[in-house]
Amino acid sequence: MKNELATLSIPMLDEEMGQQVKRYVDSLTVPQGSLGRLEELIIELAKMTGEAFPEVSRPGVIVFAADHGITDEGVSAYPKEVTEQMALNFLNNGAAINVFSRAIHAFFDIVDIGIDADIEAPELTSRKVRRGTRNFYKEDAMTREEVNQALEIGYERAQKMIEQGAKCLILGEMGIGNTTASSAIISVISGKSVESLVGQGTGLKSEGILHKQRIIEEAILLRKPIPDDPIDILMKIGGFEIAGMAGAMLAAANNRIPILVDGFITTTAAVIANLISGRASDYMFVGHQSAEPGHKTAIELLGKEPILQLGMRIGEGTGAAVAFPILKSATLVIKEMATFESAGVSNK
Amino acid sequence: MKNELATLSIPMLDEEMGQQVKRYVDSLTVPQGSLGRLEELIIELAKMTGEAFPEVSRPGVIVFAADHGITDEGVSAYPKEVTEQMALNFLNNGAAINVFSRAIHAFFDIVDIGIDADIEAPELTSRKVRRGTRNFYKEDAMTREEVNQALEIGYERAQKMIEQGAKCLILGEMGIGNTTASSAIISVISGKSVESLVGQGTGLKSEGILHKQRIIEEAILLRKPIPDDPIDILMKIGGFEIAGMAGAMLAAANNRIPILVDGFITTTAAVIANLISGRASDYMFVGHQSAEPGHKTAIELLGKEPILQLGMRIGEGTGAAVAFPILKSATLVIKEMATFESAGVSNK
Repeated sequence: MKNELATLSIPMLDEEMGQQVKRYVDSLTVPQGSLGRLEELIIELAKMTGEAFPEVSRPGVIVFAADHGITDEGVSAYPKEVTEQMALNFLNNGAAINVFSRAIHAFFDIVDIGIDADIEAPELTSRKVRRGTRNFYKEDAMTREEVNQALEIGYERAQKMIEQGAKCLILGEMGIGNTTASSAIISVISGKSVESLVGQGTGLKSEGILHKQRIIEEAILLRKPIPDDPIDILMKIGGFEIAGMAGAMLAAANNRIPILVDGFITTTAAVIANLISGRASDYMFVGHQSAEPGHKTAIELLGKEPILQLGMRIGEGTGAAVAFPILKSATLVIKEMATFESAGVSNK
Repeated sequence: MKNELATLSIPMLDEEMGQQVKRYVDSLTVPQGSLGRLEELIIELAKMTGEAFPEVSRPGVIVFAADHGITDEGVSAYPKEVTEQMALNFLNNGAAINVFSRAIHAFFDIVDIGIDADIEAPELTSRKVRRGTRNFYKEDAMTREEVNQALEIGYERAQKMIEQGAKCLILGEMGIGNTTASSAIISVISGKSVESLVGQGTGLKSEGILHKQRIIEEAILLRKPIPDDPIDILMKIGGFEIAGMAGAMLAAANNRIPILVDGFITTTAAVIANLISGRASDYMFVGHQSAEPGHKTAIELLGKEPILQLGMRIGEGTGAAVAFPILKSATLVIKEMATFESAGVSNK
């Protein structure tokens, strides 16, 4: 593993700044406590960034795309080629994450970390570890070396975007088959049954869901991933984009940059990042809870409350991007509001 | 009552446009149904506006401020003067609604519809019906003439903002004592006990809550408002800002302009508007569910689902303004996304 990850030292939250900002919020011209969740977001942001007036703009969106050998087992509603096609759609600005990234004026990076196709495009960041993972129903998804490579790529891309000026990081993904990998990972880490975690993914019918559950259950028995060893888990049943996102989150946490976590796949990466360094989740918000059943369990493993509950299940980072304006609103409250004293408003 | 309200004829929803837009959404490059609540918002907007590509920008925010005679009974955590002080805070751009209105680039209008003070400020729209309502524990809050006047003022302000170019309307309010009026109104209309509806308002302690409940219960027995007569209800236990917001909502619905409803007081006005014209709620979204217990019942009376659940209880229109970017995101999906066909992505 490269130096960055080997010597990772995520800073502690700035609890004192959190207290200071809480006192300031109490002086703003709204009834005490009436900001609800926005107040919590403000205080968390202050602790993360160590700033009295934290900023989250401009945000950065990094989408990692990769293929999964497990699709050979017929676990997805869409053919594998859709990973490549959707990557091209991202490059042509036609996907949901493009729309929402533009709306929040985000830096945008699309990373080929393992698509099973050759794509020539100047806007694509080509960092292919391999053309897709191996089929983890039959063998380990990747080598230990490939895991580390994928983590490092994620770390490097996030580091670069932070240096570019990103104040908040949103990770997204595209990879046909990645709800299968994520369900396997969350089942192993949580100890919950595969059945309770697997839903329709991108649109399976009930027969397809049963098949997918059986494949995952058998694959876990065959691969025997070690529940508290994130590298072992990624190696045996992971995905390149999941490892990439985990690496990116570690970079963000290491730089005190808030992370806005998206749906099931991204939250799985967040759980992995937090197993690599127990302080990573201190720097995370969960943007939304998706309709995929495993997402609830993944969020619980992080110990978070989602900001939005809109029943979305697109992935790509979309739920986080749609939630971003809420986080932004929280920062504006502290930056722009008058206090009871400054406005001459009687307090109770 | 003026012509506008007397001859009100809110158009029916455009169900055909809703169907057409639903089919188009199914062709966009996301798994079918994966947009969740965003898809519902898109289709509702299409039905309301009759447009295939509905717009909600720029939105308009109108805040109505007024005082309440019922504050003489000691029902509020803050002194009555705070209504005037907060109106000045709005004019100085220091309040929460100023911050959130700026963030969404909204037209902004603050209307004195009944503050119990004389405010001289060029930015203030002065339309005072009276210096506060009468104390409805002792007499009717307003005359029938005053009710109509307040409704008309609201209608006129909204009409003006729509002519200015507002594509979505957010109503807000400021009025110490207005959770008392709203709790009374929602109890009368829903038939639910006052006890189940009254919470801490802007910050009452438990003893204060019990006192407030008793005052409302007795006032309802004394005034005997007629549950299905919105004008009678406003006259006996209403507020000028509540009537103003109801009038504004009727203007929006009449112009096929979507309304983003805020918290407990605003939703009470929405319930009143819907009693005046049963089609008004067709043009409404509820932005958020506040922490005030009566809000849930008020939302149920409208038959809506709130977009956000952030435990806010500020009022002023803030919860709706914070929710606005979600509605905006929905419009961008339909306007900017590629279809499976245009992007060359394989469908199932």
